[in-house]
Formats: sequence, C-alpha cells, structure tokens
Amino acid sequence: MIKTPYLLFLGDAPDQLAAKVAIGIRDWRPDNAVGQFRMEGCGADLGLTDMTLEEAKAAGAKTLVVGVANRGGVISKEWKKVLVTALEEGFDLASGLHNLLRDEPDLVAVAEATGQELHDVRIPEVEYPIANGKKRTGKRCLAVGTDCSVGKMYTALCMDAEMRKRGMKSTFRATGQTGILITGDGVPLDAVIADFMAGSVEYLTPDNDEDHWDHIEGQGSLFHVSYSGVTMALIHGGQPDALVLAHEPTREHMRGLPEYTQPSLEALRDTALNLAKVANPDCQVIGVSVNTQHMSDDDAKAYLAKVEADMGLPATDPFRYGAGKLVDALEAI
Amino acid sequence: MIKTPYLLFLGDAPDQLAAKVAIGIRDWRPDNAVGQFRMEGCGADLGLTDMTLEEAKAAGAKTLVVGVANRGGVISKEWKKVLVTALEEGFDLASGLHNLLRDEPDLVAVAEATGQELHDVRIPEVEYPIANGKKRTGKRCLAVGTDCSVGKMYTALCMDAEMRKRGMKSTFRATGQTGILITGDGVPLDAVIADFMAGSVEYLTPDNDEDHWDHIEGQGSLFHVSYSGVTMALIHGGQPDALVLAHEPTREHMRGLPEYTQPSLEALRDTALNLAKVANPDCQVIGVSVNTQHMSDDDAKAYLAKVEADMGLPATDPFRYGAGKLVDALEAI
Repeated sequence: MIKTPYLLFLGDAPDQLAAKVAIGIRDWRPDNAVGQFRMEGCGADLGLTDMTLEEAKAAGAKTLVVGVANRGGVISKEWKKVLVTALEEGFDLASGLHNLLRDEPDLVAVAEATGQELHDVRIPEVEYPIANGKKRTGKRCLAVGTDCSVGKMYTALCMDAEMRKRGMKSTFRATGQTGILITGDGVPLDAVIADFMAGSVEYLTPDNDEDHWDHIEGQGSLFHVSYSGVTMALIHGGQPDALVLAHEPTREHMRGLPEYTQPSLEALRDTALNLAKVANPDCQVIGVSVNTQHMSDDDAKAYLAKVEADMGLPATDPFRYGAGKLVDALEAI
Repeated sequence: MIKTPYLLFLGDAPDQLAAKVAIGIRDWRPDNAVGQFRMEGCGADLGLTDMTLEEAKAAGAKTLVVGVANRGGVISKEWKKVLVTALEEGFDLASGLHNLLRDEPDLVAVAEATGQELHDVRIPEVEYPIANGKKRTGKRCLAVGTDCSVGKMYTALCMDAEMRKRGMKSTFRATGQTGILITGDGVPLDAVIADFMAGSVEYLTPDNDEDHWDHIEGQGSLFHVSYSGVTMALIHGGQPDALVLAHEPTREHMRGLPEYTQPSLEALRDTALNLAKVANPDCQVIGVSVNTQHMSDDDAKAYLAKVEADMGLPATDPFRYGAGKLVDALEAI
C-alpha cells in the first residue's frame, strides 16, 4: 500500500502525453495529489500547484510518485538528484517505470538509510495464494474487452465514481500499474506468476458487504492471444456477478497483432459469459462500454443506439456520456 | 537443456509412489536412464541397475536427476553428501523439488567451483518473449481436460510414442516439471510470469516441418478456476491444429475444489474449440482420451464405447489401450 497523498513528479516530460499516469491520478483521485513537481524543460502541466519538496511536505504529501515515462529507459542523473533529495526529506517513492527503483543502488542505499520505502508497482509485493474458488460475499463487476486497451480501466473508474456519487458502496480494484498508482493499492496482474494469477484476484477482491461492488480493472482480452490467459484469470478469480463488454469500434486489427481482427460484441458476450458462469453461475452481461474517442458526437451516438438495438443492452461511452446507464443496470440486479 | 543421459537418484524414498518422476523417465525415455542410485532404507526400485556415482560416470551419465520427492521440504544432510560428491565427480544436478538446489549455498558453491550446472526445473531459465500470434509451420496437438490431472501429459507422451513408432515426425513438448525432467527440456509454464505465458508456448513450439507434430503437454483446465489462465495461454500460444479432450470419469468434484463439478465432454469440446479457433481457425477436436485407471476393463470399454457414440469421436485410454485411434485421427487431418 502506497502512502497518500502524493506529490506528482513530472520531471522533464517532453509533453502532456508522457504524463499519462499523473493525469490519471489527478482526474480520478484528485484528493491524492497535493501538487506537481516539474523540472526545467518540462512540457507537461497538470494545472496543479507547482511545489518544491519542502512545500509539498508541509502540505502533507507522503509519497513522490513518478507519474511520467522516462526517456531511453534510464533514470537520469537529473531525476536522481530529485529522487534522492525526496527520500532524504522523508518521502517514499513510487514508480511504474520499467527500470525499477530497486535496481538503482543509490536509491536503495538512501531509502535504507532514511527508512523510506521504494514502491515499484510493476512488481508484486505480496505472495499471493492459489485460488480456491470459494464464493465470496459482496458483488463484483468486470469489464471484458474485444481487444486490449479499449477502455476497461476507465469503464471501471467511471462506474466506481458514479456509484459513490449515488452513495452506493463501491471500490475500484486496480490490476495494472496506472490503476495501482491512482489508488495506491492493487495487484500488478501481468507480473504475477502463472499459478497465482487467479489467486491474486481473489486476494484483491475479498469478502465484503452484500451491497458493496468491486469494480475490477480488466486486462487483456479473451481474443488477444498474447494476454488471454491474464483475462481468463480475472474472470475466474474475480467471479464477477456482472460483466460489461468493452469495445473500440475504429480498430482495424487487434492491438499489436496485425493478423487478427476483433471479435463481434456477440462473440465476446457469449464467450465471456460462458466462462464466467464456471465461477459464478449467476453472472450476467449488463451493458456495453464503447470507447468513442475517435468518433464525432453524432457518430458516437448513432453507434451507441445501434449497439443498444442489436444487443438489447444499455450502451454508453462512460467517459464521454457518463456511466449512469451501466450503474442503473447494476442497481437492477 | 539438461544433459542426458541421467543417473536417477532415488535417495531414501519411502516407497515407489515417491519416485514418480524417476518412473516417468524410465517409462518414457529409458535411453535417458543409465541406472539408479539408492541410499540405505530406500523403498523404491525402478528395476534399473544400481550404480555408484563412479559406475554411472563410466556408463556415460552426465546429470544426477533427483527423481523423488523429499521429506519435509528440506534437502537432508544425507542427500547433500551424495549431491556434493556428484558435483565433484563431474555430474550436473537436476531437480523438480520445491526447495531449490540454487537456494542451498553449499551446492551453489561446489557447482561454481567444479563448473557443473544446477537445474531447478520449476524455475524458467529463459526470458520468454510476448506472444506474437504469427502462424507457424508444422502441426501441433494439445490435450485439454475436464479437470487438472486427468492424464493430459500421458496422452501427449503416448501419442508421441505411437507416432514415432509409425515413423512419423513427432516431438513431445514438456510444460511441467515431470515432463521437463523426462525429456531434458521444456517450459515450466506454471512458474512463468503472466505476460509471457503464451509467448513461452510459442517459444516451445517453433516453426517445424509441415508433416511434424508437436505434442504439447497440457496444464490445468479451462473449467478449473485456479489454473484456467495457464490453460488459456496454452491454447492461444500453442495455436493447436488438433485438440484431444481428456477426462477422468470417476472424479466427484474438480481437483482441490469441492464446490465445483466437472463439465461435460460436450461443454469442454465447445468451449475449448471456440477459444482455439481464435489462434487457429482450422483447429479440430479429433478424439477423447479417457483415464480409466479406476475402472475395470469391462467398465472402461463400455464407457469408451458410449463416449464414441455420444461424441462421434474416437475414444481410448491411450495408456491402457494404446494411442492408435488418436494418431489415426491426426493422420486423417
């Protein structure tokens, strides 16, 4: 568990796109972000207060989060100066970088000397159990996609936010680096050892109040041959009560697999529900989440209307038009 | 890759059952086993020549294989004496034990000093790629089970042996500890990191002659919630041309999951084929392998006849009655 709130480190990010993780934190957990730390030449700006380490400390920040991709896969000397000083000032560090904080001897040494923690959210910090498949109390919702990167995390975050707005009991359960940094907790599922994948999802979504919903962040796709095993573990470890179908209509082929085309929403529905019923015979498909970011407003609305007619399910782009329809469907269960 | 042939170390195994791995090597790769090494009080006997380390070395043995489960999860002092001497005599060591050879400082030190290798076959020795899903040349067959431990490895080994007997091109591709020790090579799939599972199966079953068959050792079951993700990765990474349905009819519930019942063969057929077609649209289900070890000869034959009638597929217990029917079906593709 990463201590909140954060100071968001943007370093010398060349542009806004490089600060994706920090933007996610600002958008979804604004209370977790007391300010931003930018170095000379930084091309990103979250619109948060620029703070020195001292100012952030005084404002209550506990962890410096590297919310930005670095250049060339190395943590530069310039970054190091800030990171080392942050440790010395009493910050923990958290990062989703490929090159790990724990592989930097100077950071490890200073963290040990100061008693601060280094969190590499790509690496599991827990020894997960093997899944036991026992029915858990509380409700769980999982988005499954026609492809990778079609908006499953945003769907879960939007539904969680909408539920909490309605005063319902709800928790977003992160299974990827960005989600873990946003919430400060979760399972980096793609880095878990095969035998423990489903068990890690059980661990992430334990018994809860009967009227509490976990919104589990989806990963991969049953139809994406590189990552389908991860998706399978989410479906069986998560034992969802509700599935949301997630789709991005403008893709020409499966992400990274030019020889593969996306399945239809009908094929996704049938395949995912069939498998989900192994772990939870009462599981239902409750709606469709369409990522319309590459469509005009008119096209998006026409597409959503067609999906609703074809599938007989509520369909929305929860990021663009709100998650109300999907949460209505959950409330109706 | 583990150097063959082996001297099979049975230690002080209390009984034959504890020597399961060594028995597998003797049965399936007899050429790999020059003899057995038994300590005082050993209750197992493979019927191989008892050899000292010197005799085995003279007979050409290159690796001492720990083909036996140890007691209490520790490598005892008595074992250590033999293992250290073996390293000093020029043997590599290979083991599928949970407690790793590499975690024993004395073994590591002696291996380094003597230049010998320690193989813990539970741990991947390769950095596997992420699966790219590209169509590979050659043919692949995979057994998928209604449950874990229903005979998928034996099915693959039997089919491989039958094919080679017929002069066909065939390779058994190991994905578990026992299979890896039997053949000296393979992927310990249950220990691979989630993102690389399917890629490790692609790596294991590369391009080959058009008339060559890989028999991929199956793992888990699509209907076993603890391990279904591993099975999924085999189906998509292996891109099988042929599936064999594997079943054990006397199970009362899924292995280790008392709340779960086995699926029907029809459900397994439909679910597995649907998913396999994502990676290989030409995939076919070619037969049923039934593990009849807990049935009388009459019951087994009656059961197989009923499966053939119900499913319209050849059905056999390949270990008991031969894999001929299944290989006939592959030849017909």
